[in-house]
Amino acid sequence: MRWKQPDSHHHWKELERRVVAKTPIFTLSAAKRRDGEEKEAEFVLIEAPEWVTIIPVIEKPDGSRDFLMVRQFRHGSGELTVEFPAGAADSGEDPADAAARELLEETGCRAAELICIGSVNPNPAFMTNHTHTFVALGLEHVAEQKLDIHERVEFAPISESEVFDKMGTGVYSNGVMLIALAYYQRWKKGKNPVHS
Amino acid sequence: MRWKQPDSHHHWKELERRVVAKTPIFTLSAAKRRDGEEKEAEFVLIEAPEWVTIIPVIEKPDGSRDFLMVRQFRHGSGELTVEFPAGAADSGEDPADAAARELLEETGCRAAELICIGSVNPNPAFMTNHTHTFVALGLEHVAEQKLDIHERVEFAPISESEVFDKMGTGVYSNGVMLIALAYYQRWKKGKNPVHS
Repeated sequence: MRWKQPDSHHHWKELERRVVAKTPIFTLSAAKRRDGEEKEAEFVLIEAPEWVTIIPVIEKPDGSRDFLMVRQFRHGSGELTVEFPAGAADSGEDPADAAARELLEETGCRAAELICIGSVNPNPAFMTNHTHTFVALGLEHVAEQKLDIHERVEFAPISESEVFDKMGTGVYSNGVMLIALAYYQRWKKGKNPVHS
Repeated sequence: MRWKQPDSHHHWKELERRVVAKTPIFTLSAAKRRDGEEKEAEFVLIEAPEWVTIIPVIEKPDGSRDFLMVRQFRHGSGELTVEFPAGAADSGEDPADAAARELLEETGCRAAELICIGSVNPNPAFMTNHTHTFVALGLEHVAEQKLDIHERVEFAPISESEVFDKMGTGVYSNGVMLIALAYYQRWKKGKNPVHS
């Protein structure tokens, strides 16, 4: 047997949860929990909406591909990044709808096909949400950008090979995009869409 | 030219920063910033220590490989996960030292070689830190596990092919590990170690 301990050895049961701070993008909470040995402790949680990342694929006449990438200032790192279009679902919004909306807002494009190729918790140590990755095929430019008041997003096509080689280095400095790329590479190999 | 706007169009300058809440694993802050058009706004930041993930490689007599994986309860998702060993650097601790320490604490192993194969901000929208991925080669079991009071971590070897196929699905439900795996797959193809 791979694991010696039963699942119950690991589990903590939640006794109560309190809000520590609310912010525009997540709520910081503290959960009091008890383990099987009646030990109690408090754990920090970030309750965020579901996140979505969209990989917009442009098939070129020569058979190669570009991705539609976005450039913007990121306040956590204080740097300009190049990323796939991405955002957070509104309250009650389905991740697929959020993906279509974010793609439209950031690039003005609609996709003929939007396929979920993977979902995972960005860091289950303290995050409660998932980041969902979508591939967008059959792009059509239908509108102007529609950005939030503090957003400035530029978009441009960049070759698949550049994104494959550079994601996770230099200006391609968003780890969530490396998650998206890992799902894309698996999906491209012909594996079925995966959901956790 | 790929991007039409100069970098200065995107940048925000920080005016002040205040602590909203301190927790054992990060500090929640709010930064007041001003853009080039003299617009001001407040942005949420999570100031966390550097994170490290270690991919412990076991070369088998038949030429195939296992990874030493850990199983534990994660409080953000409230689920048991299977992951690479990982943790956070202590204050002032070098990421490479943190990686060696976390590997030793969680598995009792020392590595003859510990190679940084990539570093990226886990989410530059609000995180200020980086997650650093290390490959650990030449493992030797030298000690018992040494866990924090609320940690229960089991470790076991799992085949490289299972981890390649399943990471980001089912119990392999930590996005940070998909980042680590993406760096590993690039490193294995013979590309140089990359640092952002």
